[in-house]
Amino acid sequence: MFDPAGPVLGIDPGVSRCGYGAVAGRGSSLRPVACGVIRTDPAQELPARLADLERELDTLVRELHPAALAVERVLFQANVRTAMSVGQASGLALAVAARAGVPVAHYSPNEVKLAVAGYGAADKEQVQAMVARLLGLEIPSSADAADALAVAVCHAWGGGLRNAVAAAIGKEDAS
Amino acid sequence: MFDPAGPVLGIDPGVSRCGYGAVAGRGSSLRPVACGVIRTDPAQELPARLADLERELDTLVRELHPAALAVERVLFQANVRTAMSVGQASGLALAVAARAGVPVAHYSPNEVKLAVAGYGAADKEQVQAMVARLLGLEIPSSADAADALAVAVCHAWGGGLRNAVAAAIGKEDAS
Repeated sequence: MFDPAGPVLGIDPGVSRCGYGAVAGRGSSLRPVACGVIRTDPAQELPARLADLERELDTLVRELHPAALAVERVLFQANVRTAMSVGQASGLALAVAARAGVPVAHYSPNEVKLAVAGYGAADKEQVQAMVARLLGLEIPSSADAADALAVAVCHAWGGGLRNAVAAAIGKEDAS
Repeated sequence: MFDPAGPVLGIDPGVSRCGYGAVAGRGSSLRPVACGVIRTDPAQELPARLADLERELDTLVRELHPAALAVERVLFQANVRTAMSVGQASGLALAVAARAGVPVAHYSPNEVKLAVAGYGAADKEQVQAMVARLLGLEIPSSADAADALAVAVCHAWGGGLRNAVAAAIGKEDAS
């Protein structure tokens, strides 16, 4: 299911709402391929919701044949409950990617902001507006889908490499 | 894969080490059916480790045909990194259980301690010693396997119900 010429699939993991956004192309010719939110039924019990989420993620990877999965690395969370929930969703996404042979890249929130908006202290709205402009989209109605597109764009543009270069030439990341 | 007469499978979720312990029987005739630790290769990347863990958990559920999966509910963690990691492992365990039709029960650490050692403030060593005595085992060499057996025993003994009754009659949980 791994296609080296396939799109980059960004994931914003969550159990209630898991954002996804795929971009194809390179450099200034990036284009959106898919974006949306996988929602699980809050009336169902957690294990069933997680199984549903894993099935949907699996379908997404089968359909898109991504060249890479890009996920934001969560370093801080308001609380442990949120971190557990993000962990549960991201664990499923990573396992799905590994089974499909799709490489996974992680980016810190600052790497994503630096890549997309040009500076690491950009706020969420600036990042979303920039992603929309870059991809020729209306500002996506869902913040989760927008966040997923942002991390996909970050990867498509060289992500960590870009940051490493910026650091090497002394351009300070405002993180 | 769900067998209502099957054992209770306790899980102590973790990516590096995931403890498991299954007990069969009822009341004072509980017996250990399986216990051990699933380890993932630290030399591998996280997605591959998570895929390995999910495969092993799936095999465990296929082999044991558990009547229930019992997992400790993690409320606090020393840090977000640990919570994420526990979340990733538990997410896989819960999805595996749901796919196999195995019901999942969660217990707080205090519920497990109260059920196994008789009081909610018991320390880890007391719980492990009690589990070993109850099941006629040497103290399990792995703390992860012992913790998994403890939550399985908690469920086999009525778990939350026992606590609800204790609360109703005014016996205070020392949590």
